[in-house]
Amino acid sequence: MAVKSGGAAAFAEWRDCFAALDPGLELLPWAEALRRPEIVDYALVWDPGPGELARLPRLRVIFGAGAGIDGLLADPDLPLQVPLVRMAIPEAAQRMGEFCCWAVLSLLKEARRLAIAQAAGVWDYFEPPHRADLRTVGLMGLGAMGARCAAMLQGLGFPVIGWSRTAKSLPGVEGHVGAAGLPAFLGRSHILVCLLPATPETRGIIRAETLALLPRGAVYVGLGRGLHHRLDDVLAALDSGQLSGAVLDVFEPEPLPPGHPLWSHPKAIVTPHVASLPSRAERAGYVARCIAGFERGEPLPNLFDPARGY
Amino acid sequence: MAVKSGGAAAFAEWRDCFAALDPGLELLPWAEALRRPEIVDYALVWDPGPGELARLPRLRVIFGAGAGIDGLLADPDLPLQVPLVRMAIPEAAQRMGEFCCWAVLSLLKEARRLAIAQAAGVWDYFEPPHRADLRTVGLMGLGAMGARCAAMLQGLGFPVIGWSRTAKSLPGVEGHVGAAGLPAFLGRSHILVCLLPATPETRGIIRAETLALLPRGAVYVGLGRGLHHRLDDVLAALDSGQLSGAVLDVFEPEPLPPGHPLWSHPKAIVTPHVASLPSRAERAGYVARCIAGFERGEPLPNLFDPARGY
Repeated sequence: MAVKSGGAAAFAEWRDCFAALDPGLELLPWAEALRRPEIVDYALVWDPGPGELARLPRLRVIFGAGAGIDGLLADPDLPLQVPLVRMAIPEAAQRMGEFCCWAVLSLLKEARRLAIAQAAGVWDYFEPPHRADLRTVGLMGLGAMGARCAAMLQGLGFPVIGWSRTAKSLPGVEGHVGAAGLPAFLGRSHILVCLLPATPETRGIIRAETLALLPRGAVYVGLGRGLHHRLDDVLAALDSGQLSGAVLDVFEPEPLPPGHPLWSHPKAIVTPHVASLPSRAERAGYVARCIAGFERGEPLPNLFDPARGY
Repeated sequence: MAVKSGGAAAFAEWRDCFAALDPGLELLPWAEALRRPEIVDYALVWDPGPGELARLPRLRVIFGAGAGIDGLLADPDLPLQVPLVRMAIPEAAQRMGEFCCWAVLSLLKEARRLAIAQAAGVWDYFEPPHRADLRTVGLMGLGAMGARCAAMLQGLGFPVIGWSRTAKSLPGVEGHVGAAGLPAFLGRSHILVCLLPATPETRGIIRAETLALLPRGAVYVGLGRGLHHRLDDVLAALDSGQLSGAVLDVFEPEPLPPGHPLWSHPKAIVTPHVASLPSRAERAGYVARCIAGFERGEPLPNLFDPARGY
């Protein structure tokens, strides 16, 4: 299996993980795989160069190394005849749920204000205005990650409503569907959370027009991909008071450039795309299980579907 | 009813709250009540002066305005023959649960490191090392607030164990009891949360000797009262690596003095005693319900018990 995910230190960690799981699996650094393409059966990749996967003639399965596969789909020569498995693992959903709840509670408890006061060494006492059971979370994206987030948020006391491209049913979550369902969904979302996949249809879905449909003083949590939100529109909404806060973990491009006004914005929490990176051990376990099942003739899970785009 | 909780603006808000709930209840500012002590039936108080409650000859019930009553108990002339009702309301437990989960997730996700990076405008990418289901929360204090915190933490995936002075049973929470049960409890607590009441026995319970019994690299969340933890010992444990992080919301004295090393400590999150202040409307609703029941001859809830000290 050829690996292109992280640098040399990451490769050593991948090798140790797989050695413990499947000693018969030979791991190749990416440069060596490109020199000996005929021996590569599997690829575990985050950011291969354009056209590089197409140069592996005997490739049987591609495993995306992260939760999203938009980086791989950007390769115009991606070999679509090779099965592409998304890293949709329970550990990733668990971590996303934890981060989502942290972000939502950070906005409920005004953690940005608390952090600014701590940085200034000032005892800034205030009476927190909100309570979870009085603020509705609107969750965009109801896949495995959305389902885990919804259950965890409900456990904290938040009413949760959902929006997705096609109808989906989650326990206790009133679903809204498609473009026609978006205005009513937004109008009820005090706390808007975006967990959508990155597709051409979801690009720019969080922009001035959609933000204007939220209740005044709503908050926004961007955890999907940077392409989902127009940062200038989010900033304008923060400054106008339409949004009273935001947590943003994803940007376009990444990293968020030094000096960008979001870094110092008093209502925004900026994090460096850390919401849901499962550990290498967790991901290696999933890939090893997939390969073992595949070689026994079982179907591969979480396959990329070109028709829906994720 | 005489009120001593917050300043003049707070009094106006209390008056509006009670006017909507019980128009027959006359509210007196504290100074006026002390001038006309014979007309005071009820007192809603956070910080009356020592001896002042004893000057109200017809007082029938004292309502503590906050979650703890340690401020009232510090009055040597507190009239112990008058029933003292603690503000143990579901809204306070809900708010405490929200803050507790925020604090615990902030430590799991290394929010202090994220905030320092944002303040510097630096994209400090790292792979978060922990996952909720692999870190045990040890909860000290299993009353109404502890019960709500335990349920919410379990919903996030954390295993939860508990410690209390007398045996208490919460669903899915392995309980440890008394001084004899403390070492085994601490030895399993990756995340130690203190929600104990303020009593002479709980003073200084979090100190060098107890912190040393935690697994190395544990984290501490102090949400009860400042008297529970010795701040110098917490600081020393952070600096030695015995603790890898802390969230502290309570101090002795409050406010935490300007220039105290905790304000700028890279592993500590400092908040200004905001974990669980229910709104005045929530507290007024509870007091109005208590008075209505009391006047119908029903027993008062959540009475202070001098024997156990809370």
